[in-house]
Amino acid sequence: MMATHPRQALDLLLRGQRGTSVFSDLRGLQVMLDFERALARAEARVGIIPWATAAAISDCCYAECFDQTALAGGCALSGNLAIPMVQQLTRLVSDISVEAAGYVHWGATSQDVVDTGCVLQLREFLDLLQATIRQAAVEFATLTDRHQDTPMAGRTWLQQAVPITFGLKTAGYVDVLLRHLERLDELRPRLLALQFGGAAGTLASLGDRGPEVAAALGDELQLTVPAISWHGHRDRLAEVATLCGLIVGSAGKIARDLSLMGQTEVAEASEPSAPGRGGSSTMPHKRNPVAAAVILSTAVRVPGLVSAILGAMVQEHERGLGGWHAEWETLPEICTLTLGALERLVELASGLEVDAVAMRNNLGLTRGLLLAEALSMALAKNIGKARAHAVVEKITHRALEERRPLDEVLREEAEVTTHFTGPQLDRLLDPANYTGAAGSTTATVLAGFRSRQAEWNAKGAVDHAGN
Amino acid sequence: MMATHPRQALDLLLRGQRGTSVFSDLRGLQVMLDFERALARAEARVGIIPWATAAAISDCCYAECFDQTALAGGCALSGNLAIPMVQQLTRLVSDISVEAAGYVHWGATSQDVVDTGCVLQLREFLDLLQATIRQAAVEFATLTDRHQDTPMAGRTWLQQAVPITFGLKTAGYVDVLLRHLERLDELRPRLLALQFGGAAGTLASLGDRGPEVAAALGDELQLTVPAISWHGHRDRLAEVATLCGLIVGSAGKIARDLSLMGQTEVAEASEPSAPGRGGSSTMPHKRNPVAAAVILSTAVRVPGLVSAILGAMVQEHERGLGGWHAEWETLPEICTLTLGALERLVELASGLEVDAVAMRNNLGLTRGLLLAEALSMALAKNIGKARAHAVVEKITHRALEERRPLDEVLREEAEVTTHFTGPQLDRLLDPANYTGAAGSTTATVLAGFRSRQAEWNAKGAVDHAGN
Amino acid sequence: MMATHPRQALDLLLRGQRGTSVFSDLRGLQVMLDFERALARAEARVGIIPWATAAAISDCCYAECFDQTALAGGCALSGNLAIPMVQQLTRLVSDISVEAAGYVHWGATSQDVVDTGCVLQLREFLDLLQATIRQAAVEFATLTDRHQDTPMAGRTWLQQAVPITFGLKTAGYVDVLLRHLERLDELRPRLLALQFGGAAGTLASLGDRGPEVAAALGDELQLTVPAISWHGHRDRLAEVATLCGLIVGSAGKIARDLSLMGQTEVAEASEPSAPGRGGSSTMPHKRNPVAAAVILSTAVRVPGLVSAILGAMVQEHERGLGGWHAEWETLPEICTLTLGALERLVELASGLEVDAVAMRNNLGLTRGLLLAEALSMALAKNIGKARAHAVVEKITHRALEERRPLDEVLREEAEVTTHFTGPQLDRLLDPANYTGAAGSTTATVLAGFRSRQAEWNAKGAVDHAGN
Amino acid sequence: MMATHPRQALDLLLRGQRGTSVFSDLRGLQVMLDFERALARAEARVGIIPWATAAAISDCCYAECFDQTALAGGCALSGNLAIPMVQQLTRLVSDISVEAAGYVHWGATSQDVVDTGCVLQLREFLDLLQATIRQAAVEFATLTDRHQDTPMAGRTWLQQAVPITFGLKTAGYVDVLLRHLERLDELRPRLLALQFGGAAGTLASLGDRGPEVAAALGDELQLTVPAISWHGHRDRLAEVATLCGLIVGSAGKIARDLSLMGQTEVAEASEPSAPGRGGSSTMPHKRNPVAAAVILSTAVRVPGLVSAILGAMVQEHERGLGGWHAEWETLPEICTLTLGALERLVELASGLEVDAVAMRNNLGLTRGLLLAEALSMALAKNIGKARAHAVVEKITHRALEERRPLDEVLREEAEVTTHFTGPQLDRLLDPANYTGAAGSTTATVLAGFRSRQAEWNAKGAVDHAGN
Repeated sequence: MMATHPRQALDLLLRGQRGTSVFSDLRGLQVMLDFERALARAEARVGIIPWATAAAISDCCYAECFDQTALAGGCALSGNLAIPMVQQLTRLVSDISVEAAGYVHWGATSQDVVDTGCVLQLREFLDLLQATIRQAAVEFATLTDRHQDTPMAGRTWLQQAVPITFGLKTAGYVDVLLRHLERLDELRPRLLALQFGGAAGTLASLGDRGPEVAAALGDELQLTVPAISWHGHRDRLAEVATLCGLIVGSAGKIARDLSLMGQTEVAEASEPSAPGRGGSSTMPHKRNPVAAAVILSTAVRVPGLVSAILGAMVQEHERGLGGWHAEWETLPEICTLTLGALERLVELASGLEVDAVAMRNNLGLTRGLLLAEALSMALAKNIGKARAHAVVEKITHRALEERRPLDEVLREEAEVTTHFTGPQLDRLLDPANYTGAAGSTTATVLAGFRSRQAEWNAKGAVDHAGN
Repeated sequence: MMATHPRQALDLLLRGQRGTSVFSDLRGLQVMLDFERALARAEARVGIIPWATAAAISDCCYAECFDQTALAGGCALSGNLAIPMVQQLTRLVSDISVEAAGYVHWGATSQDVVDTGCVLQLREFLDLLQATIRQAAVEFATLTDRHQDTPMAGRTWLQQAVPITFGLKTAGYVDVLLRHLERLDELRPRLLALQFGGAAGTLASLGDRGPEVAAALGDELQLTVPAISWHGHRDRLAEVATLCGLIVGSAGKIARDLSLMGQTEVAEASEPSAPGRGGSSTMPHKRNPVAAAVILSTAVRVPGLVSAILGAMVQEHERGLGGWHAEWETLPEICTLTLGALERLVELASGLEVDAVAMRNNLGLTRGLLLAEALSMALAKNIGKARAHAVVEKITHRALEERRPLDEVLREEAEVTTHFTGPQLDRLLDPANYTGAAGSTTATVLAGFRSRQAEWNAKGAVDHAGN
Repeated sequence: MMATHPRQALDLLLRGQRGTSVFSDLRGLQVMLDFERALARAEARVGIIPWATAAAISDCCYAECFDQTALAGGCALSGNLAIPMVQQLTRLVSDISVEAAGYVHWGATSQDVVDTGCVLQLREFLDLLQATIRQAAVEFATLTDRHQDTPMAGRTWLQQAVPITFGLKTAGYVDVLLRHLERLDELRPRLLALQFGGAAGTLASLGDRGPEVAAALGDELQLTVPAISWHGHRDRLAEVATLCGLIVGSAGKIARDLSLMGQTEVAEASEPSAPGRGGSSTMPHKRNPVAAAVILSTAVRVPGLVSAILGAMVQEHERGLGGWHAEWETLPEICTLTLGALERLVELASGLEVDAVAMRNNLGLTRGLLLAEALSMALAKNIGKARAHAVVEKITHRALEERRPLDEVLREEAEVTTHFTGPQLDRLLDPANYTGAAGSTTATVLAGFRSRQAEWNAKGAVDHAGN
Repeated sequence: MMATHPRQALDLLLRGQRGTSVFSDLRGLQVMLDFERALARAEARVGIIPWATAAAISDCCYAECFDQTALAGGCALSGNLAIPMVQQLTRLVSDISVEAAGYVHWGATSQDVVDTGCVLQLREFLDLLQATIRQAAVEFATLTDRHQDTPMAGRTWLQQAVPITFGLKTAGYVDVLLRHLERLDELRPRLLALQFGGAAGTLASLGDRGPEVAAALGDELQLTVPAISWHGHRDRLAEVATLCGLIVGSAGKIARDLSLMGQTEVAEASEPSAPGRGGSSTMPHKRNPVAAAVILSTAVRVPGLVSAILGAMVQEHERGLGGWHAEWETLPEICTLTLGALERLVELASGLEVDAVAMRNNLGLTRGLLLAEALSMALAKNIGKARAHAVVEKITHRALEERRPLDEVLREEAEVTTHFTGPQLDRLLDPANYTGAAGSTTATVLAGFRSRQAEWNAKGAVDHAGN
């Protein structure tokens, strides 16, 4: 029955392969079995069960051996996936050893398995997330490096404001991605904590051996053993959701920028092209921004999903009713969508086709008005700030009304021509000369990026050497 | 590749079979093909294409003939499912007639197919939704009928307030469900509208025949032809989401009530039991409220999903970027979760085990204080409102402080015993006698329900006769 | 203390005067007092209290007589505004008649007052909302009428697609606004329901007179008397929130469109100008789209607020804990923001400066590629669909690669020039000739609008005559 | 006009004094003026303007001197508060020195002022937030210390599961609060960053002196100078919102727990009482949980507000349209509600009335079934796990069916009495003896708390010494 109702048509578009794999049903089952195996081994290590029992249990902890359809049915009846998983596992183990079967899941509660399994999946996810954010940062750093002297219109409230460089824009992207990596580093140790408390957090069925088993179990799974079980306190998981929310917000901002730059009328940048990509059979001029569509749709969806996770935190007593269940699909949804959006961001950044000529042309659209501030500042040095402001206002109003270039109008203004020669005015009205601190800012961001990148590489080398 | 990453383990628990089927990938593909078939037939009807062409196209419009994996891949590339669907369909048709293949999807745009397909799925969904709400209303009406004289504590701010009847409580459930059915009726005609505008809503590729084709197409699909295409105006779809949000809110309220009544300490009602249902291996006394868990988790999740749909309404120009894409999974998610929750509500209502004795016992927990108001009202008739209030305040404070029954304390109070005999006081302090308008209110609600039910039956009979 | 911490700096910008007035503290207090006055009168009408008592109470029901600071303090202590309001009212009445003071709020519970007061405020709000949506529809209908033949680029995925008319775009706005008015009409009778149930919905303190008092009270306030009180069922109020969510989504869509059209590079429409409006001291060319900013910010905020209202529906038992309290500020927030956004929409629509020349110029940006479909359709009649498609593909690719106008390239193509004369090609490549059903669609929408408008006027005349 | 529409009636209840003050209009204006003063001083320090000019400007930077009504009106026209603020400030300064008036706001853009002002307010807020979380942690640590040996029922899915201690429950509260403090520490340095970029982030109007001015300005305001301005990247602010979301989720969880414990039928804990607090005139036995109501309502509201902030992150280009505006009220709303909820949590924790006897009594409600697991574990040591499980299952089923105490039933069972004496069974069935690792866990949490507390005190002492 399960085989007939998949809902995966959009997975490849919206989530990509990697995130979908981490949070597949099969993987979700395997991490629960990893818990059961580790629990058996931990109990053998502290001497609560024989090693042979642990071995018998371990030998059955392979997701492929399980009947997923039966699991889904058992879950519908019992209310969570761990119960039918434990039942099937017990049956499998009892084929090897009836004795051993009695020790399956010994001392643990369903939520211990489900929550720890979730943490194990999130560990894989965080690695992918980190790698993908880094990739995106690298791509935008490359663009920044390449375009630090490419002038374009700075835009505020969707209106051209004053000139910037494209490198300054992408430096902002690099900067925010580095901040997200920092947050990810901070969150990781909090998240990677074992869940193991038994029915109500006391591990009472293990007598006074609970903490010992917990320590061994944490060691088996390479997870921190927290001071107290967190069945009813969901901040660790919710924090992953909120971090994803922040990351997706930034990805959405970038995708919005780039898709606006890709408008037919702006035409400053476009998504990488490929056969069949974003094409339209009847509209040959169109190149649909598929990556931006994916990222923006994710940016629309994730905030609501985050709010669900936050709302779900209000869980009753030792283990709650409904709130816990609300996390099961929502958290993977957030993670896979976030990763999918970031993969698209990498693709977008790495293949972006930038049209510096169009940027330059667009700088001319206001017929020089974009540089009114520059002119005003220059004039002020000669005739004072107040007077300069008045003169520029007069000129710009005339330019606006007569729809003539500022360049032309100002050369008719004595108070301007007295103080500036023609070539001086040319320089003054070249947008490339009015980008202020764009260059130094960009350099600072790039320097910061490179130092972080060096750390990653050093760390990566160590990690690699350590393998 | 698709087969290895399903995420369906929780479908049966959270969504049930029916909703999952309506929104499966296969069904989603079929409704798009239903559009293509209807379009070909419509164009044949108005004479734009030959009937043989329409027949060739129709013959290929079977979802089972399509390669779903290739669809997913094509979708990832092109940005929506309609493009690879049309490509596959065209290939299939060209095996029959190269000529006909040229007329596949003639005049339509991707969004026409996707949106109309979505409306067709929602039509099926609304039928299921309506039927399930009606079932729930029937079940709660039955409970209301049975328990209109079963006294229990009314509770406000989680504190016992004054007595009510259990029938009054469930009458409230019936009442709100009827209101949701009314909303559903109102929404339906707005929703069931064809989407057909071509690339930008002008149907220009059909010359001046667009409206004619649209009319025929609407007729084929039994959908209204709206005054104007609605590619960029998503209120029709978003309204389904908001209605689901309202319904789920009510379902959550009911599940909250019943799960609170099922607490070990309250024990007034419990979920139906079944072998394996909500059981706990190590805690024999527990019967986990699985249905309530499902409903409450849905009530936590759906509001955020609704907010995503509302946020997605801000779509650009003739067809938007990102907002449209955000709907694709979110709307089915809302619908399937809503239906799943309602199916659980029906199950909960129909199998609810009500313990009227426990209700009665709980009415005694405040040692009579629950009836202070009743006493005050009765006394007021004899000694005036102000004096009555003062006397009752004195008595209740003593009862509270001395932790003695009000019944006992008040019989020591002259101002009370002067006016009431023992048996009169017995009657006064019987919670069953202080339920005010509960009876008439319940009767009114039930009468309203029955009249609605008669309408459904009449309508159903007509529908049936019409088949 | 209260006077020192107002948070109103943004009210005029974001909410406007009218909505802010309806939901001011003073008005919020007055509607509660309206309830108390009506309750006293209702109880006098059915003979439960003397008319003199009702008169004494009525005489004190003026918000201006109350100490708002004390109310806020009392609310902080007791947990809702009705309790300190009743206390102050009782004190005021007791200055007139100690006897009468005993009958203040007789039979009602705090939530009866707060909820009914809320409904009274919402009634005022709905009137304003309806009037403002109608105004917006009128303005967009005027634009539609004026611009039904103004060609512009239709845009999908932020790319130019095929030509439309500006009238077609605004007709879409009219159409959706009419749908919202329909929803509003349907919601109104459900919403305008009295809340009156006493402590737990039984009106027990009124003995068997509850329903009678309720009927008289409903009559006093011109509210429907529902079958059962709805303290724990919040769908009526939540539906207002969801309707606002839908409306704001549409307003956001329109504001997004118009702000995109107002980009420096597009320049097809701009917000009305006024001294000081959206100006920038240093950037004379900028005209900040203030109305769009307000509407879009509201469209970002309201979905989350709606989700809060939906989440708040899960209220416990007869009167809930926390959920009810969550509505108090959230619902007015939604209403005032919605009304503020709509007022801005009216302002935007009525003062919109449309630049038809710019629209025409932008149609030329793709150098004719926008009309590839038109050419293909025309050619197909001569050389068959498949061949036409191939020819046009060849031509458009050349035009794209060589960055030359389609017009120029296609005149070099024998298969084209064989079938079309120069003037024929001129006509074919004029975007104004490829707007398909735009004209008839626009006419249909306008006709629908006018018929609705006639109904409003007729209804308004009747209402007026009735006064 | 402003004075007549305040919406503050609920401030004291929901937000408390402190948060309301930090985010009042007056304070919001003052922080903008703090920016202007600091900017003038910074520019004087680097020699761009004379010190006399800076002094003239500084002398006018007092919020009390401003016309708030005019500000609101100017804001409605110009679209943000900074523009009319700068206009009024310029007028005030020009009364002192026309020359100086020309340098007001020199080089800054509106968003520089608004954003930096917001950061300054958030700095105050974070201090209050930290102090309040610490207070709550202290209170719950005190309860933990006091109740580490107070047995109560552990509850899962709203059903009694196995015994815990009340100290274990509150230890969980302490633990999560410490984690939130950790997050707050991490967030702070990221947040406390200057916003200063001029019109589009280049500071071009300051020529090449921009970075220098920025450095001096950061120094004046004691804010970090970030590598690049963050007008379009809102993660710093959004992170405050998400942290509040996490904190409120935890507060809601605690309030839910305590309010469930306060139900009439459970009666294990109740909110502190005070005259007038949560009272009900007609229901003397009720003590409405006002603090829980406030916290829970906040927990319902904040997730949706957080989603709005996340949704608002998608801001266009250098400074966005609508997204920025959406933050202005939403962020203060989140902060004030969070602080208000936490203040209530402190109040709740510090005044909580705990009824250990009721806890003990409730442990008996299942007639011993709560200890089935304990019995099973004990028996297993004698007769093996499988057999023990079977025996206990038999006994518990009999107890359930016959509604008799487990204690009684099991003494009829030979397999039990063979292995345990009467007193042994007594011990076994005492819930206080089956709390497993509760004691050690509680001790670990308390030790962790004390070490953190020592750090606060040490840090506080240093801070104090430094003053």
